[in-house]
This record gives sequence, structure tokens and C-alpha cells, in this order.
Amino acid sequence: MSERQLIDFGRDILSRQPFSMGLGTEITEMREGFVEMRLSIHEGLTQHLRMVHGGVIASMADMAIGFAGGPVLQEAAVTQEFKINYLRPGVGEALIGRGTVVASGKSQAVVRADVYVLADGEEKLCAVAQGTMVRAAR
Amino acid sequence: MSERQLIDFGRDILSRQPFSMGLGTEITEMREGFVEMRLSIHEGLTQHLRMVHGGVIASMADMAIGFAGGPVLQEAAVTQEFKINYLRPGVGEALIGRGTVVASGKSQAVVRADVYVLADGEEKLCAVAQGTMVRAAR
Amino acid sequence: MSERQLIDFGRDILSRQPFSMGLGTEITEMREGFVEMRLSIHEGLTQHLRMVHGGVIASMADMAIGFAGGPVLQEAAVTQEFKINYLRPGVGEALIGRGTVVASGKSQAVVRADVYVLADGEEKLCAVAQGTMVRAAR
Amino acid sequence: MSERQLIDFGRDILSRQPFSMGLGTEITEMREGFVEMRLSIHEGLTQHLRMVHGGVIASMADMAIGFAGGPVLQEAAVTQEFKINYLRPGVGEALIGRGTVVASGKSQAVVRADVYVLADGEEKLCAVAQGTMVRAAR
Repeated sequence: MSERQLIDFGRDILSRQPFSMGLGTEITEMREGFVEMRLSIHEGLTQHLRMVHGGVIASMADMAIGFAGGPVLQEAAVTQEFKINYLRPGVGEALIGRGTVVASGKSQAVVRADVYVLADGEEKLCAVAQGTMVRAAR
Repeated sequence: MSERQLIDFGRDILSRQPFSMGLGTEITEMREGFVEMRLSIHEGLTQHLRMVHGGVIASMADMAIGFAGGPVLQEAAVTQEFKINYLRPGVGEALIGRGTVVASGKSQAVVRADVYVLADGEEKLCAVAQGTMVRAAR
Repeated sequence: MSERQLIDFGRDILSRQPFSMGLGTEITEMREGFVEMRLSIHEGLTQHLRMVHGGVIASMADMAIGFAGGPVLQEAAVTQEFKINYLRPGVGEALIGRGTVVASGKSQAVVRADVYVLADGEEKLCAVAQGTMVRAAR
Repeated sequence: MSERQLIDFGRDILSRQPFSMGLGTEITEMREGFVEMRLSIHEGLTQHLRMVHGGVIASMADMAIGFAGGPVLQEAAVTQEFKINYLRPGVGEALIGRGTVVASGKSQAVVRADVYVLADGEEKLCAVAQGTMVRAAR
């Protein structure tokens, strides 16, 4: 797939995910083994301290892992597992997630994802994750 | 705190979390070092294959870790990190999350969380997680 | 396999692992989806503070995950990934690792492992882990 | 600390860790927030398939996380938790571990570690890890 086809493929899948769309997620860049996604922060995504809810940050990590690693497996793929470390409160205008495949083989792709919070025009690292995509037919 | 006070405390915090409320999350049981939470599955929580989105399952794990482990620390606490393994597609009527503190000390509580999917009246294990709560003032 | 056959199978593999034998690892109990292993603590397994080295505790977790989850897959299996939380310094006479399969399917087994330190005849939880075994042919 | 002082500091600690020395671990490079470590592969480090034992690879990850992240905290530090994904059998002459701090604050340093296997003069990525160092006084 060309990069154009890949991003169209990714955006088509994303557009059919009611939860991702409800979060306001967009794919802003996508190439073989890499994706950049973004969502605007609004009150509906926060917890009681007015910071972005950890579940939203984890969802961004999950999506960045999936959209970076899924296409590499060239078949229906699912997230098998991931791990996330929270580094900084999610306070700002937007979350930006970047997923990068670090290794892939016949049946798995291992992906690292970084989630940034954009505040006053500056990106700050908010969470780091590492996870595995596998072919869906298990 | 008595169990009654603890569950009231938990429900008060949950009610002030717009994202958790938007998911439809409820606390169904809570005692020292343990919480059970529940949310009804509806289309808005799914992905393109009509299963519950991995981000929702991860959010349930994050909440079960937080509401089990947070009160144990007896101070404002935050999720520092967690890991989740997905076991089974989230297809059914509801997600049930149960968090259990496995160890706690002065500054951390380590929690295991199990997320079940309720389908046709039967609970099936959908995901297992393990994470750490720490005092907020880092 | 009967429990007798299973433990013989496990002990045979263990005996052909030079690193595990060098650590002094024994299998003390084994049944479908469960293993208990043990190693005596001595100076060669410690770090600069005279506690058991984190790598030894991680090795015990890795082995407990492998010997609990591998046989369930009924084929050559490998550890794909795991996560460990350290809870307490490893100071005492022995490490005891217990691995329990929490879910298994066609190609993966997800296992939780607890590592205890035995000190003055009392077991104390030293680390908790969660990981995945997969069939070797990836 | 200068880089010279930092590497001397790291090597001094390592030299007082009987387990790390028994594995044959060396620090080959060290600067603020980064470490490179190495150990030669020999039969004593293998499992029954003559590959490096997963516990050795996990130990290398644990050490790379510790020696990269510990000094950043400027106090006695311990590994709190880590996660590792195995990517490739450890077959070759040496393991090389590189740890890089991705974020640090008052009380924690989050570190990513890559473990390579050196075979026929070529480094291949063998495992990737992510973990947390915290101050020892918990």
C-alpha cells in the first residue's frame, strides 16, 4: 500500500469505531509501522481533578499501538496486551499519540507508543506504552 | 471508614468524573482493598467489529485499579502504571471490573484487576490487568 | 498427562536448562495450569545491598509463567512477554514462585505468577507478575 | 557527576553485585540517563534449547533500567516494576542492553531498555522493556 492508501485504510477503520469517533480521534499521519493520532481535550474526557481521565490516555495508547502495528500484520489484527506508564497529568488542548513498530514477525508486531499532551502550543510527554498486536484468528 | 462510607466516598468521586459517567460506570461493591464496577455495553462503546473497544476495557481496568488501590493509600492517589492482557472479545450486555489490592505500603498499592464480559447471564473473563497506585504528590 | 507425568516432564526440561539449574531451581509441585518452584537464596544471587537481585526474582517469575503456561499449550512454547512488580526486598532463605494459568486458548496462555520470599519460616509476597506463553512456531 | 565519575560509580556498584558479576556483566558506556551493558553468552546462561534463558534477558533489562534510571534519582533507588517483550531467541556471542530514561521526576524515572543479541558481528533486537525506578525509601 502507498502511504495515501494506508492512511485512507486507517481512517476508514477509525470512522467505523463508534468509541474512537466519540472520543474525537483523528489520524494525522500514517506510514508503514507508524501512526500519529490526535484528539481534542474537552470536559467529557476528564476525571474529578479536571485532568484527562487515565482511560482516555490508555485508549489513545491502545489506538496508537493498533493503528501502527495492525497493518504490518497484513490481516485482521487485535491488540493482545499492552503496558502503560503515566508520566504527567493530561492538562491542555489535545492528546497526540504516536505508535512505532519496534519489531514484527509472522504473527506478532511489538509497538511502542508515546502519548503527548499539547498545552500552549508545546508538546509534553504524558504517557509511554508498549504492546503487542497479533493476528485476529487465534 | 466503614464499608458504607467507603462506597459513598467512591461513588462521590466517580460521579465527578465526566468520562467515567459518560461510559455509564457504576460502583456495585467496595470494601477495603476491593472494588467491583460495572458498565452496560452499547454501540457507542464499540469498535468496527461491533466488539467493545479495547480502550473501554482498558478504562475499566484503570478504574478498577484506581478505586481498589486509591483508598488504601489514604491520600490523593494516581495510577502510575498498569498492564493489561486481552483474553476474549467484549461481546455481551455489560462489563464487570473487579480490582483487588495485592500489596500496599507507605507510598504504593499494587492491584490486580479482572474484567469480565456478561453475556446471556454468564460472566466470562475478558481481560486481566496489574498496576500500581501511588500518592499524588510526586 | 497425569500429575506424575506432568511433574516428570517439567523436571526433565528444567534439568536441561543450565541457567535454571545454576540458580538452584526446583519444581516442588505441578498440575494442569499450575506450578510451584523454589530456589535457595545464597550470596551468589544477591546485589550490592545483600538482597536477592531483581534479575533472579524476574527469572523466577519467568520460570513460573513458563512451567505453568507452557504445558497447557501442548506444544513447544515460549514466553512472549511478562510484567513484574517488585513488592518487598528479597531477604530470606528461599524464593518460592507460583504460576497459575488464568486463561488459555488455541495459541496463548496468560499466566499470573507470585514470588514469595521465605524468611524465618514465613512466606512473604515479594513480587507479582503477569505474562503470556505462545506456541514456539511464530 | 562527570561521565567519568558516573561510569566509575556504576562500575563500582556493579562490582559489588555477585549475581551481575556471575552473569559476566560489564558496563560499556554510561552517561546521564543512559547506560550500555554487555555480557558474553556461554552455556551456563542457556535453557534446554541452547538459547539464552529468558531470565538472563530479563536480568539484562532489569540492570539496564536500573543503571540508566537509578543515578537520575540521585539517591538509593530500586526497580519498582518493568515489562518485557521477547522478540527473538538469544543465540549469539553476547547480549547488549541499552537503557534510556524517557522521563524523570522527583520520585520516579521511567526507562526504556533494548536488549540486543550480537551474532556474527551483527546486533539484532532480542527484547524490549519498559520500567520504573523509584527512590528506595518507600
